[in-house]
Amino acid sequence: FSTFAHSKKLYEKKPCKRFVLYYHNILFNGTNAANATSAATTNNTGLGNFNHGMLVIFDDPITKDNHLLSPPVARAQGFYFYDMKTTYNAWFSYTLIFNSTEHKGTLNIMGADMMNEETRDLSVVGGTGDFFMARGIATFRTDVAQGDYYFRLEMDIKLYECY
Amino acid sequence: FSTFAHSKKLYEKKPCKRFVLYYHNILFNGTNAANATSAATTNNTGLGNFNHGMLVIFDDPITKDNHLLSPPVARAQGFYFYDMKTTYNAWFSYTLIFNSTEHKGTLNIMGADMMNEETRDLSVVGGTGDFFMARGIATFRTDVAQGDYYFRLEMDIKLYECY
Amino acid sequence: FSTFAHSKKLYEKKPCKRFVLYYHNILFNGTNAANATSAATTNNTGLGNFNHGMLVIFDDPITKDNHLLSPPVARAQGFYFYDMKTTYNAWFSYTLIFNSTEHKGTLNIMGADMMNEETRDLSVVGGTGDFFMARGIATFRTDVAQGDYYFRLEMDIKLYECY
Repeated sequence: FSTFAHSKKLYEKKPCKRFVLYYHNILFNGTNAANATSAATTNNTGLGNFNHGMLVIFDDPITKDNHLLSPPVARAQGFYFYDMKTTYNAWFSYTLIFNSTEHKGTLNIMGADMMNEETRDLSVVGGTGDFFMARGIATFRTDVAQGDYYFRLEMDIKLYECY
Repeated sequence: FSTFAHSKKLYEKKPCKRFVLYYHNILFNGTNAANATSAATTNNTGLGNFNHGMLVIFDDPITKDNHLLSPPVARAQGFYFYDMKTTYNAWFSYTLIFNSTEHKGTLNIMGADMMNEETRDLSVVGGTGDFFMARGIATFRTDVAQGDYYFRLEMDIKLYECY
Repeated sequence: FSTFAHSKKLYEKKPCKRFVLYYHNILFNGTNAANATSAATTNNTGLGNFNHGMLVIFDDPITKDNHLLSPPVARAQGFYFYDMKTTYNAWFSYTLIFNSTEHKGTLNIMGADMMNEETRDLSVVGGTGDFFMARGIATFRTDVAQGDYYFRLEMDIKLYECY
């Protein structure tokens, strides 16, 4: 009855829940407080020329399509930082917060965002509310990047453990 | 034998282990080093008026009742930061470290602390020692908040996966 | 069929996958950019004399033996910070990134690094690619520490949930 300490054999890896979302990040530049959704709380460290060490704290809108002004269906709260000296590369840890008629609850996500890859997988490590105890994979794809100041990620959230 | 890729149907959500703990945070203000249990390692970013971007690193005592001076039953080591421009709102990631005759081991926890909600749920994403491989929910409730400098949270830890 | 809400009884705790790796951290000191693999993005907070609040962001090589110059088999990207006022003690959150013929995928890890303990256990909270949905324990042992500027950890990665 317990699969512990054994491999779970899977002939199909079908998510029990899946949704595609868009994450919009507008970085504070000192003058755009009305629109900004995030701000850097540390400067880069000077190790290389790719913002190494710049840590950004965000409260970003999440939409169902890729339009910044579509009604948000969730918020993403958390942080990312740049971590490589030879290229742009980031690391994320954050919470998706749903508070709508459709979904109430949170998903907690962490992992590396290897920005030079077409897609990259992070881990959904837990959930609450409607997503009680969920686990899965969040696949990032850069939808648009306008310098540091606006970027949009497609987040393809696939849950493989649902309760 | 594997529940993978299927919803786990639950008629009851009873924790396999539960305990209520109190977390005490005393912020370093430059002169209270003897008592302080945490300190801000970044200033706020200036995005709004609610400490956005202030990152606090802590090693906080955990007690069984809500008295600061009760004997600690664990430590909480980790960090939180404020992440909203329109209200006080935080995000936590930390480890509960137990090292007593009763419990030895750790629980790793992360999630959003929506301070304006009466209670908020974070994810217990892993455990070690007596809490080997545990998962569950940590429900926060603010017990007292004295400005930035002392606050106390009730943490209702419910484990739903125990080994 | 579901073990949810029950303790999983284990007579043996045998990992389904295990590997011992070495993590090499060379801290940027302002002049060693060619060799440095990490840099502090915040100063310490002045709470005690043990670097409390110093936050280091890394992209570190991972090798199979304890030689810095052995060919890396993975990268470790993430951060650690010092969190105690009375001794050196750290907290880690990071991703192991494998991209070789042997393994492709990531493992996401977080937990307390109680540096004064001979060994300490962190949680492997998720995985992707070859390590799809993995969970387990990462046991740290300090292999060598040369001040702040170079240290090497043995990471004994034991996965107990494999898919």
